[in-house]
Amino acid sequence: METQVFEVRTGDRPAVVDITRQVEAFCRGKGDGLVNVFVPHATAGVALIETGAGSDLDLWKAIDGLLPRDDRWVHSHGSPGHGADHLLPAFIAPSVTIPVVAGKPALGTWQSVVLVDPNRDNPVRRVRLSFLG
Amino acid sequence: METQVFEVRTGDRPAVVDITRQVEAFCRGKGDGLVNVFVPHATAGVALIETGAGSDLDLWKAIDGLLPRDDRWVHSHGSPGHGADHLLPAFIAPSVTIPVVAGKPALGTWQSVVLVDPNRDNPVRRVRLSFLG
Amino acid sequence: METQVFEVRTGDRPAVVDITRQVEAFCRGKGDGLVNVFVPHATAGVALIETGAGSDLDLWKAIDGLLPRDDRWVHSHGSPGHGADHLLPAFIAPSVTIPVVAGKPALGTWQSVVLVDPNRDNPVRRVRLSFLG
Repeated sequence: METQVFEVRTGDRPAVVDITRQVEAFCRGKGDGLVNVFVPHATAGVALIETGAGSDLDLWKAIDGLLPRDDRWVHSHGSPGHGADHLLPAFIAPSVTIPVVAGKPALGTWQSVVLVDPNRDNPVRRVRLSFLG
Repeated sequence: METQVFEVRTGDRPAVVDITRQVEAFCRGKGDGLVNVFVPHATAGVALIETGAGSDLDLWKAIDGLLPRDDRWVHSHGSPGHGADHLLPAFIAPSVTIPVVAGKPALGTWQSVVLVDPNRDNPVRRVRLSFLG
Repeated sequence: METQVFEVRTGDRPAVVDITRQVEAFCRGKGDGLVNVFVPHATAGVALIETGAGSDLDLWKAIDGLLPRDDRWVHSHGSPGHGADHLLPAFIAPSVTIPVVAGKPALGTWQSVVLVDPNRDNPVRRVRLSFLG
């Protein structure tokens, strides 16, 4: 297996960060296999969605409906509503596996790999890419 | 890695299509390994649920609660509420990995592999199966 | 591939059971690769969340909001609201893949692997671990 970690600056507000370019660069020259995109954090997830047409904004609306940022949560340190952030990875998992064909992730035309980070308190996140062929 | 793409007709209404048979056929004779089921589309997902007892219908009720088909979404081309379709893969990912033992996906008795496609505008979908042993 | 099945007692009420220790023990000595954690059941899922700080309790609150345990579901055998249990794996998938580095799952500091089992009717569950290096 080949594996590599890189950092992403997500800033101090909820962020959907497109990391497709990094995944593509990692796969280049690797032939056929599977690439796993993994976020080693308890308040972030990875998703495959279209970016640039509004869905990244819409995603927060949907997440706020599912996981309201209020005082209902037992887990309640940090920013108000931070307990919601801790539930995000149960619904948007921090791991996704993508087939790689001839050194390219076999994504559809409109699919991008995004890091979903609701967390206001951690401005830098790590992502681990792993390739098995 | 061995990989293969097939098409599924999902029609012009929300569809949960059982593709277990295709996954089983692909794994036959391949020994032990992992099979990845991947949908290269931005408005569809893959799930492992029981089919034939009503959960396929229930799933749309749950999805409509999470992602209402109305005009709240920024991403708003196509059919009314289509922005909701674009969020589906964030919650029902378009990728699932299943262990394969002796050429058979090691699914539980009541688990089926289903393509979840809310999209009214794309009647045919592709699915990529990839095996690594 | 190396693969192994173990049992978890989840009891007769909704349970979030930490299985990190079992995953770590399975990976020990295996070098670099990917470990897949798979639950061969139609009413359970696997998640990577922080445990011990309240999120395991909060998770049921979020699940009850998404999948209310009432008579709205078509799939309706067993305990009241059991149809909701059948939808859980669509949103919290029964499969997660984790990178393994030098025989250790490359989890973040606050990430635990948990079995999420809402089902009151099945007190014992199986989990399959599979390693590919």
